[in-house]
Amino acid sequence: MNTDTISLIGLGNVGSQLYRSFLENEVRVSHVFSRSSKSLDLNQDSMVVNTLDALPKKQLTLLCVPDGEIRSLIQNIDPEIPVAYTSGSVSLDSFSNRTHVGVFYPLQTFSKGREIAISKVPFFIEADSAVYEKKLVLLAKKLSDHVSIADSEQRKKLHLTAVWVNNFTNHILMQAKAYADEQQVNFEHLKPLLEETVRKLDGMSPYDAQTGPARRGDQQTIDTHLNELTGIQKELYALISKSIQQAYKK
Amino acid sequence: MNTDTISLIGLGNVGSQLYRSFLENEVRVSHVFSRSSKSLDLNQDSMVVNTLDALPKKQLTLLCVPDGEIRSLIQNIDPEIPVAYTSGSVSLDSFSNRTHVGVFYPLQTFSKGREIAISKVPFFIEADSAVYEKKLVLLAKKLSDHVSIADSEQRKKLHLTAVWVNNFTNHILMQAKAYADEQQVNFEHLKPLLEETVRKLDGMSPYDAQTGPARRGDQQTIDTHLNELTGIQKELYALISKSIQQAYKK
Repeated sequence: MNTDTISLIGLGNVGSQLYRSFLENEVRVSHVFSRSSKSLDLNQDSMVVNTLDALPKKQLTLLCVPDGEIRSLIQNIDPEIPVAYTSGSVSLDSFSNRTHVGVFYPLQTFSKGREIAISKVPFFIEADSAVYEKKLVLLAKKLSDHVSIADSEQRKKLHLTAVWVNNFTNHILMQAKAYADEQQVNFEHLKPLLEETVRKLDGMSPYDAQTGPARRGDQQTIDTHLNELTGIQKELYALISKSIQQAYKK
Repeated sequence: MNTDTISLIGLGNVGSQLYRSFLENEVRVSHVFSRSSKSLDLNQDSMVVNTLDALPKKQLTLLCVPDGEIRSLIQNIDPEIPVAYTSGSVSLDSFSNRTHVGVFYPLQTFSKGREIAISKVPFFIEADSAVYEKKLVLLAKKLSDHVSIADSEQRKKLHLTAVWVNNFTNHILMQAKAYADEQQVNFEHLKPLLEETVRKLDGMSPYDAQTGPARRGDQQTIDTHLNELTGIQKELYALISKSIQQAYKK
């Protein structure tokens, strides 16, 4: 098995980005299996297949599919085909009845229409043998300058941290924008603040960077804000403020 | 009253930054009243005073103090002295027994030791008369290219939005780092993700940018993560995930 040519399953946010990145880095993607192949302009060198039986033997098949679909898909792939998947959470020991199974996990958020600088994305590799692990590391190094080995437990923790760093901060910003739009506050005014929020963390821990009413213990402002809010926004404001106050309680 | 020379009360995070910014922009700060003046290298042209009676008449005094201290301080300042304060939340109508009272609100997060590009900070001005408002606008324009008028109600909403955008996202990142440190996950691996989280919002709304288990409705991963967490982190994870699921429910 070499890693110059691979097969790919799934052309969602992760699969589409990896497909483009492989091609840009001279990895041939000879076979693509996807429910939504129409959504991507595939290279003429890539063949779209609509059955798993059409995947070539002894060639890596990379699964870029939701976590819940990985197990059943792998069960239906010929055991002679080496497989790897891109999930942060699915443990490798879920596949102990199979050889040549591995993980190819890019720690990044992927959205349709956004091109990622793949060379800066940290990849975490795991495999059921040292030899196979090495192959997956080599493949990842064709894309990225930041390739590490991580076992399933470490990867789960990386993924959980990533949920906070990306998913949860993004949702807080979604709620901020929803509130601003509803109250006719121009969200553009908040952009310099958002930029500084992140820039600050270059030389400062988030613990030290914290400011605001909850940090100061300014209960009057907290109460004023809670009175402005309703529903889940009020619940979020109350819990996050409580959490801040708890973190800075002497 | 001109705005070439002012007095300043408070040398905390906001006051220290504004003090430096005024000097850099040729606004003289002739008198400084502060409990902590030792903490800042004051220009030799600035006189430190330790009584409010020493503040010069007919010269603007800018209060950079916590919200809870503004009212009592202003009550103790000679009514002939025009005053303004930097708070996002305190309403101007709290001072209806006084003339020449105004608001000089910079929408940014200030921390000790961090220099802010003041020219990009949005300032929001409010005052009890059109003439005084104009003076405060002129003063703000000496520092910043982004000066607007906002009444107390609009300012409160801007401030509440800022609490989400900065205070709450920062706290989420604090929890992320606390979890990572505890679990020996190298937080450096998360930096490219954090950068992309913000960069993404240049061309995409946070609503569209959302990814992750809660967005996908991946309850199995959510449950796995909840099992990893305890205490307030678990509460935060559960509520924010619920809020994401609620936002994307069809």
